[in-house]
Amino acid sequence: MQIKTLGDEMKTRPDVDYLFKPRAVAVIGASHNSAKIGYRIVENMVQRGYKGEIYPINPHGGEILGLKVYPNLAEVEGDVDVVVITIPARYVFDAVKECAAKRVKHLLIITSGFSEVGNAEEERKIVAYAREHGMRVLGPNIFGLYSAAASLDATFGPGGILPGRVAIITQSGALGIAMIGKTAAESLGLSALVSIGNKSDIDESELLEYLARDEATKVILMYIEGVKHGDRLVDTLKQVTRKKHVVVIKSGRSQRGAMAAASHTGSLAGADNIFDSIMRQCGVLRAESVQEAFNWARFLADAPIPSGKESVIITNGGGIGVLATDACEKYGVDLYDDQQVLKDTFSDVMPDFGSSKNPVDLTGQATAQDYERSLEAMLSNPDMHAALALYCETALFDTEEFAALLKREYARYKEKKPVVFSLFGGEKVEEIVRELRKEGVPVFSDVYDAVSCLGAMYRSWIKMRQPSGGAEEVEIDVAAVEEILDRARDEKRGFLLANEAQEMAKVLGLSMPESIMARNLDEAVRAAEKIGYPVVMKVVSKDIIHKSDAGGVALDLLNRDEVVDAYQAIMRSCRAYKKDALIQGVEVVEMAKAGVETIIGARQDGSFGPIVMFGLGGIYVEVMKDVAFRAAPLSRREANDMIADIRSYPLLLGVRGEKRKEIDGIIDVATKLGALIDKCRDITDIEINPLVVYEHGHGVKAVDVRILFKTTREVR
Amino acid sequence: MQIKTLGDEMKTRPDVDYLFKPRAVAVIGASHNSAKIGYRIVENMVQRGYKGEIYPINPHGGEILGLKVYPNLAEVEGDVDVVVITIPARYVFDAVKECAAKRVKHLLIITSGFSEVGNAEEERKIVAYAREHGMRVLGPNIFGLYSAAASLDATFGPGGILPGRVAIITQSGALGIAMIGKTAAESLGLSALVSIGNKSDIDESELLEYLARDEATKVILMYIEGVKHGDRLVDTLKQVTRKKHVVVIKSGRSQRGAMAAASHTGSLAGADNIFDSIMRQCGVLRAESVQEAFNWARFLADAPIPSGKESVIITNGGGIGVLATDACEKYGVDLYDDQQVLKDTFSDVMPDFGSSKNPVDLTGQATAQDYERSLEAMLSNPDMHAALALYCETALFDTEEFAALLKREYARYKEKKPVVFSLFGGEKVEEIVRELRKEGVPVFSDVYDAVSCLGAMYRSWIKMRQPSGGAEEVEIDVAAVEEILDRARDEKRGFLLANEAQEMAKVLGLSMPESIMARNLDEAVRAAEKIGYPVVMKVVSKDIIHKSDAGGVALDLLNRDEVVDAYQAIMRSCRAYKKDALIQGVEVVEMAKAGVETIIGARQDGSFGPIVMFGLGGIYVEVMKDVAFRAAPLSRREANDMIADIRSYPLLLGVRGEKRKEIDGIIDVATKLGALIDKCRDITDIEINPLVVYEHGHGVKAVDVRILFKTTREVR
Repeated sequence: MQIKTLGDEMKTRPDVDYLFKPRAVAVIGASHNSAKIGYRIVENMVQRGYKGEIYPINPHGGEILGLKVYPNLAEVEGDVDVVVITIPARYVFDAVKECAAKRVKHLLIITSGFSEVGNAEEERKIVAYAREHGMRVLGPNIFGLYSAAASLDATFGPGGILPGRVAIITQSGALGIAMIGKTAAESLGLSALVSIGNKSDIDESELLEYLARDEATKVILMYIEGVKHGDRLVDTLKQVTRKKHVVVIKSGRSQRGAMAAASHTGSLAGADNIFDSIMRQCGVLRAESVQEAFNWARFLADAPIPSGKESVIITNGGGIGVLATDACEKYGVDLYDDQQVLKDTFSDVMPDFGSSKNPVDLTGQATAQDYERSLEAMLSNPDMHAALALYCETALFDTEEFAALLKREYARYKEKKPVVFSLFGGEKVEEIVRELRKEGVPVFSDVYDAVSCLGAMYRSWIKMRQPSGGAEEVEIDVAAVEEILDRARDEKRGFLLANEAQEMAKVLGLSMPESIMARNLDEAVRAAEKIGYPVVMKVVSKDIIHKSDAGGVALDLLNRDEVVDAYQAIMRSCRAYKKDALIQGVEVVEMAKAGVETIIGARQDGSFGPIVMFGLGGIYVEVMKDVAFRAAPLSRREANDMIADIRSYPLLLGVRGEKRKEIDGIIDVATKLGALIDKCRDITDIEINPLVVYEHGHGVKAVDVRILFKTTREVR
Repeated sequence: MQIKTLGDEMKTRPDVDYLFKPRAVAVIGASHNSAKIGYRIVENMVQRGYKGEIYPINPHGGEILGLKVYPNLAEVEGDVDVVVITIPARYVFDAVKECAAKRVKHLLIITSGFSEVGNAEEERKIVAYAREHGMRVLGPNIFGLYSAAASLDATFGPGGILPGRVAIITQSGALGIAMIGKTAAESLGLSALVSIGNKSDIDESELLEYLARDEATKVILMYIEGVKHGDRLVDTLKQVTRKKHVVVIKSGRSQRGAMAAASHTGSLAGADNIFDSIMRQCGVLRAESVQEAFNWARFLADAPIPSGKESVIITNGGGIGVLATDACEKYGVDLYDDQQVLKDTFSDVMPDFGSSKNPVDLTGQATAQDYERSLEAMLSNPDMHAALALYCETALFDTEEFAALLKREYARYKEKKPVVFSLFGGEKVEEIVRELRKEGVPVFSDVYDAVSCLGAMYRSWIKMRQPSGGAEEVEIDVAAVEEILDRARDEKRGFLLANEAQEMAKVLGLSMPESIMARNLDEAVRAAEKIGYPVVMKVVSKDIIHKSDAGGVALDLLNRDEVVDAYQAIMRSCRAYKKDALIQGVEVVEMAKAGVETIIGARQDGSFGPIVMFGLGGIYVEVMKDVAFRAAPLSRREANDMIADIRSYPLLLGVRGEKRKEIDGIIDVATKLGALIDKCRDITDIEINPLVVYEHGHGVKAVDVRILFKTTREVR
């Protein structure tokens, strides 16, 4: 699959621009009762100061908040771009027909009672009708939409949304509404807020594409409970994160949480480690809690892109400096480390007995001026890229002066270098933290929260700096693959036999141990001599799937005698195991030399579609869960990142004086499997176990390849 | 070493009770200048309302805050229990002499400029003099002490400390002073606050012993930068955590943080994973950030001890319920799971379309009454042990009514079951959170913070419920051990040769592979025949330490011929490796059957003294850092906990249909090594690598034992 550019995507689909910048909005179900959703939405639109026309629709007519109420949509004179529908589910389809007649562009269906309660039929009918008539649907089962570009608050939330640079897309209605209040309380300005509900038509991917183009949006914050059509989401996210920061909260991390999410949304959350791996691949910042996501979003909305990765900590307390250093390691924030430069930079601007090491310790005697001079010194050094200023309340420090300083310094800094503050102390300090936060200064009580923001920024920055480029172009002879599968399908098999897997490996260009099929003892001996000892011998029989259980496998055969003995033993055991088994012979296989045993696989994932997995063999994957995933197809860099993701990666780099292993060979296999699973979607599962990896320059060997596929060919 | 009871400890040392409940306090260095520390301390004592006598001492005399100033201590008429010293370092010793003459009990030496800046000599002199004259020293280099029992704030902090149930011991002065303000801002009431500074005399352990006995103290919060005399600290903590919750923040988690801590305090932080393991062993709750520690301490100070481990989540939003479920898994909080009972308990008290599953979802329609009824229902069910009530702000909910309800419910609950709240929403909700927190209600904006408190409570609870009991009584024939060491010492060796290690293993009762020393080829062959094939052969030479490097090891010898070949090969290689090596012969060793290879060791740790470590063999320890530690000596339960701590523990329980391994055998070895390293402190390092572990019932085998020790015998 080619990665489409955003431009390409847009040409193929109706524009969602009108959704965010409508010229007129009608509300079908507008209510005179201020306790009703249908009133609240009109009220929010009016209060937010929407500049276009608002048309409340209600058969009873009259006025709502001074606006004329129309008995139906047909009687509205002007064009209507967006219609908000908030009438009971059973009337919605008729309303949609009215909208079609009026040539509306977008429908916001607030109403619930569709697929989320099992009524998928009605939902499908509505969407199909809407699409036929050139309309797009957001919802149903949503709380509405806010767009700063149009000063439009078409939600039934609490109002008071501040305009800004963060766009929120939320799958949860309740949490989304609560977020509205929270954003206001935290002075987090929004460019957009979209409730996606049942995602019957417009989904996250399409919204992301719009927001990627939206100049006002700098950060996109998503709350996700379950992923559908994940492969499209992956393509979109990879593009979007080149330009914007994307923060995601996905609940259902835990097994029990995933079950709760499934019963809540009806969509299975999927394995959390797959989600986690793939978000990393996409350059998305995954927050654990809502508070963490808000902290990041706020900070990233205003922080400039740093010019490098070296941060400086300035503190007035050693203890809090050490805590910040710990936090830097946890969140992957690098500290500037040239002792001489640190000394040159800071020794003139700090108290005598302070320390110019990083953390730069101004000591408990530090004044606001000391902070100011240190921050200025740091700012003027181009090799220091971000600052973390910590303040630990002392008995003898003018806190108010310090607050004024922070505001001043932040105003000077914020366009130039990322800077974040942490203030720890009593009520006065807490008040300053609250007040400064309201004014948009990135300041926290706890150092960990402050450092976490820097960490998020750097992770996003690394992604933005990576050279762009799509997946590796891997030539796969799809016809040859399908032919192998079709032969098995003719026998109603959904898996490949050993010799077929060999063929498949050849098509893919995978290196496997040499193997010869032998139909009798003589042939077996000749095969062994040809391959060279030691060899492995395995029974070949369509009737025996679990060869080891049947005693059908012999390893490490060192000479002719052992081959003869093993052949006879295999025949005996297999006949005893299954009397009427048709035995075609044995496969004689080169015994792979010892190396690092890895497992590499690919499959069609329920959430993300084609994915690739990698881990070290044996118990590393099973017991230690030391495995990484990526969405397919893969670029070589992505394959390399996947390999480096596992905790046991140092083994491949070479430990205890061992040489580096053939990581390039693993990357080759990973990109091939990724291309195969992407191009041949009928293949459900590929596993190479073990893929033996030798020293650098000595290649890899796929010892056993298992392939599962659909027994009936489905056109992709 | 026997674990001493707290009573025993007290008999052997002067009582620190007078420190916390002094009848009179003098301040040497009391100042008339309100900007000085010597004024601030007197002011805090007066303002806090200390009931005993306050004697400011200053040669200039006069009055401070209406108190008569004495020119020197001798002129004070009454007895003085505690003297606070806040004069320059060079005058301190003379002041201490004055105190001795006055028969003072405790000195609080605020003054800095002693061992923390390299002036250890003066510090030692002062402490020695004080101890000789029956005085105990807190400090130097501290900001003072607060004791609720005496309404005494003898610190130069910002004042305003609230009395309560949490005691704080801090090694950092700056952070400690900032904590004072923070406790007041968070309405965290304190029973005591002690700055320990240089710990020249009174240290954490002694303070812990006092606080363990202090009725008013329910939670002890410690900020630690480095541990000295860790073995005594471990003994004390194990005792204290049976009765009180202990929360610790230790900075220097990260490698760089540890370096920063070392340069800040002069004490090396030690490996963080050792600290972490041992705190778990002691039942101490380790917080990552100061905020987390404060959250836990506040909650634990008021929460009742739960009667079981099953919690219930009550929510009005599915999304936030899922997030809470995730958090429960993260923090080890179990959720009540009997679906039928949940239905019976909650179906009558909730909206029709809610869910009685846990999380109990009252839906967005929930009223304050629905919450109230659900909480009451939960309270009345004895099988549900704690509650987590979540609220996600909705557009149509009376938030004020809800706040009143929370306060009411919490007041009813707090004596009966632990309950914690999380409220997510806008400014109004945030205000309620702040207001309720001020009144002591455990309520948080973020669900993760709320659940984290429940998790901490359960971890502490598990420890408190465990049967008490000291380390396993392991008989170690110390004389025999010392004799083996002495023989090596005679040769100036600090390590044991193979045959000596065998002897040592026998003394300890460790099972090792059978081994026979052979001085020539004939003896080697006879030894192999006696042991039975396969065997291993290793060169024996004091001149060859790294046997493998010298080609001095042959594995898996299957028969006589192979023994003969190997013998000759070994002699050839070793002579080539080191021409003049004196070769005593070879060791012929039974080849241990394959099993799970583990590493078990013990050593004298710089921070904690004798410790034991355990991990799986090979790269698990080296690459995966999958290793656990415990302070020695160990009980069998502690040994078992250590083994279960490693991530690869499932391997020992048996995966993929394999049988459980001989975990009891590992516990035996662990307790033996623990007893040995504790009793023979001259042994610096023991490592058994591998300790091969077989199936349950088939024992373990110590294949290779390495022992390092001091070459000169030191009396313990």
